[in-house]
Amino acid sequence: MNGAESLVSTLLAGGIDTCFANPGTSEMHFVAALDRIPGMRCVLGLFEGVVSGAADGYARMAGRPAATLFHCGPGLANALANLHNGRRASTRMVNIVGDQATYHRPLDAPLTADTEGWARGVSGWVRTATSAATVGRDAAVAIQAARTEPGTIATLILPADTAWTEGGEIGAKLPVPARTEADPLAVRNVAAVLRRGEPTVLLLGGDATDAAGLEAAHRIAAATGASLMAMGSNARMARGQGRVFVNRIPYPVDQAVQAMAGFRHVILVGARAPVIFFAYPGKPGSPLAPGAELHVLTRPEQDPRAALARLAEELGAPRAPVPDAGPRPEPARGALTPETVAQTLAALLPEGAVVADESITYGRGFFPGTRAAAPHDWLQVMGGAIGGGPPMATGAAVGAPGRRVINTQADGSAMYTLQALWTQARERLDVTTVIFANRKYQILLGELANVGANPGRTALDMLDLGNPDLDWVSLARGMGVEAAGAESCEGFADLLAASLRRKGPFLIALAV
Amino acid sequence: MNGAESLVSTLLAGGIDTCFANPGTSEMHFVAALDRIPGMRCVLGLFEGVVSGAADGYARMAGRPAATLFHCGPGLANALANLHNGRRASTRMVNIVGDQATYHRPLDAPLTADTEGWARGVSGWVRTATSAATVGRDAAVAIQAARTEPGTIATLILPADTAWTEGGEIGAKLPVPARTEADPLAVRNVAAVLRRGEPTVLLLGGDATDAAGLEAAHRIAAATGASLMAMGSNARMARGQGRVFVNRIPYPVDQAVQAMAGFRHVILVGARAPVIFFAYPGKPGSPLAPGAELHVLTRPEQDPRAALARLAEELGAPRAPVPDAGPRPEPARGALTPETVAQTLAALLPEGAVVADESITYGRGFFPGTRAAAPHDWLQVMGGAIGGGPPMATGAAVGAPGRRVINTQADGSAMYTLQALWTQARERLDVTTVIFANRKYQILLGELANVGANPGRTALDMLDLGNPDLDWVSLARGMGVEAAGAESCEGFADLLAASLRRKGPFLIALAV
Repeated sequence: MNGAESLVSTLLAGGIDTCFANPGTSEMHFVAALDRIPGMRCVLGLFEGVVSGAADGYARMAGRPAATLFHCGPGLANALANLHNGRRASTRMVNIVGDQATYHRPLDAPLTADTEGWARGVSGWVRTATSAATVGRDAAVAIQAARTEPGTIATLILPADTAWTEGGEIGAKLPVPARTEADPLAVRNVAAVLRRGEPTVLLLGGDATDAAGLEAAHRIAAATGASLMAMGSNARMARGQGRVFVNRIPYPVDQAVQAMAGFRHVILVGARAPVIFFAYPGKPGSPLAPGAELHVLTRPEQDPRAALARLAEELGAPRAPVPDAGPRPEPARGALTPETVAQTLAALLPEGAVVADESITYGRGFFPGTRAAAPHDWLQVMGGAIGGGPPMATGAAVGAPGRRVINTQADGSAMYTLQALWTQARERLDVTTVIFANRKYQILLGELANVGANPGRTALDMLDLGNPDLDWVSLARGMGVEAAGAESCEGFADLLAASLRRKGPFLIALAV
Repeated sequence: MNGAESLVSTLLAGGIDTCFANPGTSEMHFVAALDRIPGMRCVLGLFEGVVSGAADGYARMAGRPAATLFHCGPGLANALANLHNGRRASTRMVNIVGDQATYHRPLDAPLTADTEGWARGVSGWVRTATSAATVGRDAAVAIQAARTEPGTIATLILPADTAWTEGGEIGAKLPVPARTEADPLAVRNVAAVLRRGEPTVLLLGGDATDAAGLEAAHRIAAATGASLMAMGSNARMARGQGRVFVNRIPYPVDQAVQAMAGFRHVILVGARAPVIFFAYPGKPGSPLAPGAELHVLTRPEQDPRAALARLAEELGAPRAPVPDAGPRPEPARGALTPETVAQTLAALLPEGAVVADESITYGRGFFPGTRAAAPHDWLQVMGGAIGGGPPMATGAAVGAPGRRVINTQADGSAMYTLQALWTQARERLDVTTVIFANRKYQILLGELANVGANPGRTALDMLDLGNPDLDWVSLARGMGVEAAGAESCEGFADLLAASLRRKGPFLIALAV
């Protein structure tokens, strides 16, 4: 057994059975080992950002890490943007990065780069394997690190000779520390804050946004009068009929400040202290009201659902029924607007759908507009690195077979990782991509207006995706994905409904 | 004048008049400054790897650095692979990376990342600006660093508040140190080696592969019986009729070893010590014959052409006529093969053409086969990071207006940066992309065979770009580039000739 074989066997023994990959020369022994040892589903991406983003989406839905395979420093570099997004989502992932043989690295061959240095910024755990005999053990530690709460990205760099040399040993599966409970003192402190009756919001993030977490939070809110709010972006949120609806902190700074203005106390439940995405001259960096107090119910590694249950007991809060979301709407008719698109989505999202959302400006109103849809999960790009949507949708479909994935997707962002469509076609994944083709970087036009400039040709050209227009139907077909365009709600509804009835991917280009 | 305005003015004063850009929120003041201050040509890329690769191709043709504009750490991360290629080409480049405001960074907003850490691996110079008052000076130093021989990538990180704050000052243009001459002792040593009459090769790289460098090297070879060889990859080589033909060290390890087997002495002229791209079990890491001696005529920062002229004087070598390349061939007929494609290229390349080559396995024989073409320049991807070709072609066309760029391009590699086609359409660049669509990672199939494995379904699927086939005509049209396919030499020749007669980009998909 060579090092690569011990590595594959260790991954399988550690519960990793899916590998998103974009291999190169230095990974051929790993690829050969995948061939010889059954049990690993290998999913090819034609660009590394697709691979890393797919592993992110997969882990969010499957609840366990995927492996990835990258080629040397530059291959890892192409993956970094979506690894950054995964890091911000506390995604569990085990990266395998093939690299120069240990004794070849000093020769500084052309593809030699600072692989380990690049990995650090996105990884909670990084190690470069040093021998075939120990690479299995290294992988077992990587899996342990990735699975330890709150979950992280572990990166194992695999010099080619540690893969091809004989003497590999399978690493025994290592125990993952149990998730810690909230500090009892934190529970009592938060209960005391809530009993004061001052304006208070429970800010939910992480697992607090699954169905059980939302119900537990609602129970407390109903008993105390506290408000509920979710982070601006959330890795996975349970939504639709039968789920507790909560809004998110808005992205634009003024709206974010307004949303938090009334609250004297902000209680973090699996959430981070909220912060504005970017600084603006003369605007605050945090949306919290001046003088507002932050309280921590659970740190990221602690279980927010259990903490909410304990808090409810502490408060003697009775069980509270989930508020009725109202009837599921009918598909909208007429012109495409953010509101009518949301209504149509709410009407047609099938039960169990997964929304992979990178709709940016166009979709800012989708959240309240889809409240009464069938029960579904909503995934967001967590780190603000552009191009997370199509890969996340791809991986989510692999991680949640049998559930339809709807990728609500801005056109400018989609261009960073459009190669994901090919993987959807290759794997016949049940993904419907809805492109909002506004043919511009709309978010930046807004930001440029905030700068106070009266934009001229140079600036406008740098924010304009027209001239030439992107033809998304042609791009999708070029990668083997059937596609069609729509310019009205009726057309959109027809295409969306048709895509839900079929197997495999479909792309809908909405001219908005 | 705010910091951004002082920065733009400093760039212009330093001779930088072209900016390849993919901006984001934190760069809006820079974009606004580009709008207010005339003189900068801004070229938008829809993915950062297009931007960095284009700046690489531009600098190689224009002989001066372009600026780039990236958005925060993840934007820079997307650029790293082609920055790595540029670093290996000693490309001059000034990166501007917008980032979080200095006082906002500690809040760790979602897009906050280790921008400076990621920049280090590809940059000879890195600095994070600290104030609007000093950012102009920082930019002047960046330009100086980029232009200092042998050329490097300088990265200036621009926190948003250093751009928007008033009080900017234009940085005075700083002197660039003159290029140093070869050490006279090195010239005499190399002359002594050559006089011994032992098997010797002059290994040419950097500026030694321009027309003057090649002629000077040929003069020495003709007088001493030494051989000439170029590095495996070269940033820019003068080729075709009237130019001295030299072959390159082959990529496959066995062929590389064979090519260097006879040489007792290897003289580096602007070249690095040759090294095999990857290690293989039981194979050498260097192609040099055992016991071969390396001699350095010029280090990278020294002028190899001047050194060759001095060496010729030292040796008393007479001027030597450039060997006749033979007649320019006719376009080939019949089936597409690497040889017939090369012949067709040799027949049709227009005088002054620029070949941007990322043809990988299919194009390994193109070099000798195009020897008798009209005079042209040949650019290669220098760092082995995949996806350099289409962006390099894009930037070369911006940097060499009036010259047709032919991007000889492998299909698998093109998928990493296919967004370059849109920029070609947007800017109406004279680029003909020739895609060799073999529908697989052919180089990896060879490498997998070397591993000795009898590949099964899992391995083959990870190296196969079919299922579904990529439709390059559809992909190109989706980005506004006209395209057509060919399956014979006649069809290829017709399309290539037609593309040369027109303005703007065209893509030819060859089913090979």
